[in-house]
Amino acid sequence: MSATNRQIRLAARPVGEVKADDWEHRSEPVEEPGLGCFVGRTRMISLDPAMRGWLDDRPSYLPPVGIGEVMRAGSVIEVTASQHPEYRPGDQVVGTFGVQEYVVSDGKGAVKIDTSLAPPSTYLGALGMPGMTAYFGLLDVGALKEGETVVVSGAAGAVGTMVGQIAKAKGCRVVGIAGGPDKCALLTDELGFDAAIDYRAEDVRKALRREAPDGIDVYFDNVGGDILDAALTRLAMHARVVVCGAISQYNNETPVKGPSNYLTLLVRRARMEGFVVFDYAKQYARAAQEISAWIEDGRIKVKEHVVRGTVDDFPETLQMLFRGENVGKLVLELA
Amino acid sequence: MSATNRQIRLAARPVGEVKADDWEHRSEPVEEPGLGCFVGRTRMISLDPAMRGWLDDRPSYLPPVGIGEVMRAGSVIEVTASQHPEYRPGDQVVGTFGVQEYVVSDGKGAVKIDTSLAPPSTYLGALGMPGMTAYFGLLDVGALKEGETVVVSGAAGAVGTMVGQIAKAKGCRVVGIAGGPDKCALLTDELGFDAAIDYRAEDVRKALRREAPDGIDVYFDNVGGDILDAALTRLAMHARVVVCGAISQYNNETPVKGPSNYLTLLVRRARMEGFVVFDYAKQYARAAQEISAWIEDGRIKVKEHVVRGTVDDFPETLQMLFRGENVGKLVLELA
Repeated sequence: MSATNRQIRLAARPVGEVKADDWEHRSEPVEEPGLGCFVGRTRMISLDPAMRGWLDDRPSYLPPVGIGEVMRAGSVIEVTASQHPEYRPGDQVVGTFGVQEYVVSDGKGAVKIDTSLAPPSTYLGALGMPGMTAYFGLLDVGALKEGETVVVSGAAGAVGTMVGQIAKAKGCRVVGIAGGPDKCALLTDELGFDAAIDYRAEDVRKALRREAPDGIDVYFDNVGGDILDAALTRLAMHARVVVCGAISQYNNETPVKGPSNYLTLLVRRARMEGFVVFDYAKQYARAAQEISAWIEDGRIKVKEHVVRGTVDDFPETLQMLFRGENVGKLVLELA
Repeated sequence: MSATNRQIRLAARPVGEVKADDWEHRSEPVEEPGLGCFVGRTRMISLDPAMRGWLDDRPSYLPPVGIGEVMRAGSVIEVTASQHPEYRPGDQVVGTFGVQEYVVSDGKGAVKIDTSLAPPSTYLGALGMPGMTAYFGLLDVGALKEGETVVVSGAAGAVGTMVGQIAKAKGCRVVGIAGGPDKCALLTDELGFDAAIDYRAEDVRKALRREAPDGIDVYFDNVGGDILDAALTRLAMHARVVVCGAISQYNNETPVKGPSNYLTLLVRRARMEGFVVFDYAKQYARAAQEISAWIEDGRIKVKEHVVRGTVDDFPETLQMLFRGENVGKLVLELA
């Protein structure tokens, strides 16, 4: 093959916000697939807030991306050549293939997708990790019950839009917290949230008193920081706080802001619980089926934010997440 | 009756540490019991870290003590006169009778005790709120299983000594965190803890790495602050953090220090849960029976710190808790 494989590799551990210098843009020859392997060309790359955590050298649920390694990322690829019995050229495959134009894979962790049922991007969003995260976080960790009040932060993001819509599908009152009037309008006008709170425009604690007058039964937290603290003051008895992420804290150069109001867990006999979606891998198929049905019948609307470009646009596109510039699932579609 | 009833009432809401001026010492005549009531003379007053929270005017699991009201406290009294069919002079009774020498009660919330089975102080400690708190916090909220590793902070206190010993009785490895070599020696040499960490003398995080090499399954937190943060770094997978109190933060004039490391809940798929012991009132009798049996067979040693004095000594005795000057259950025995 004469094509080159453009890649984004980690050049240095970022301190605070990830800078252009922290990445290495490299071109390598595309390898031929060995026996039992296939080669694919990347079509769509997923951008996720969790990526920031993967860059830090500290114990976590996955090892950090090593210096010099291709940046870890979920993506959808199209098989171009194969010596693997189960994959043929033209197959569309989702997996953790990294930020690069081509990938050689032995099929481990790869899943063939049917793009006649949903576009490739949806397998990175509503039917991918963000969808699974929302589904299991809300229903398993959050132990959501019909009629409860759910509040979700980062509500206009990939996970947040799904959390709110799944909670609505389950018969709950849903309040989303997001930044800016456009995102808030999307939540209530298009996605069926009962209320939206613009954290840039109003005091979240006061707004929660208005929108969750009987308290919050499930608070699904994607942001941490002051918004988590505000939500803690409004917990209902026996509330569940689902710790999914803390995007407001990921670029901190100082320690994470811990929730000052955590003692309301005691007053409200409430719990705060973390989870990692990979633990639910065996149940993904069941969840995807239920989510697909909700998409089919219109109860869930898929929100995606597609940036078209090359792998070289990855670093800049990633920053959009931390600036709150995306609405729904952010993907980089390779031209 | 000619006796006077000396009382300690709340004079002002304390800011930070409770000061002498925040209390009013008052003498009132002892009332005669009306029909259906009894009068008792206070023998023992319980001192509890939670008392500091009762002085703040903020929503909690109990209303705050009002300005001008007799300070709320658990105590053991001896009935001196009665017009209540179930109480006779000489009866020993435990209840929330307040910091005063005499109390008139209609018997609501009062429980007669048998001081031939255990001394009055034990009904305020091992068989009272601290014992119940340890028991239900550890076994119900903490969902303790045999063979797990339990770490408890404030380990030499009324609740901590019970947590550690109950965990040992349940077949667990137990590490206590306390301040000073004497308290640590007590834990390991007398109370059967497997290890003790002196937070004043060593780095708690490093010490936990040594004493809980496979991680902490249940962390029972009485102190909050930096020790909570250290424990969070050492959680085992699916760990339970029992939020019982935060004595290090109760006298803060600045906001409570939230746990910076709360995102380890995510990495470790762990939960942090609060509780209030009163919710278990219907199960107290069963718990007291089990604890009594452990005391009987020597598996639990009752540690009490008895200060002898008058109700006027209450304010100064309360401060001992926040200075870490007590070992085991602190009570004020009236001369």
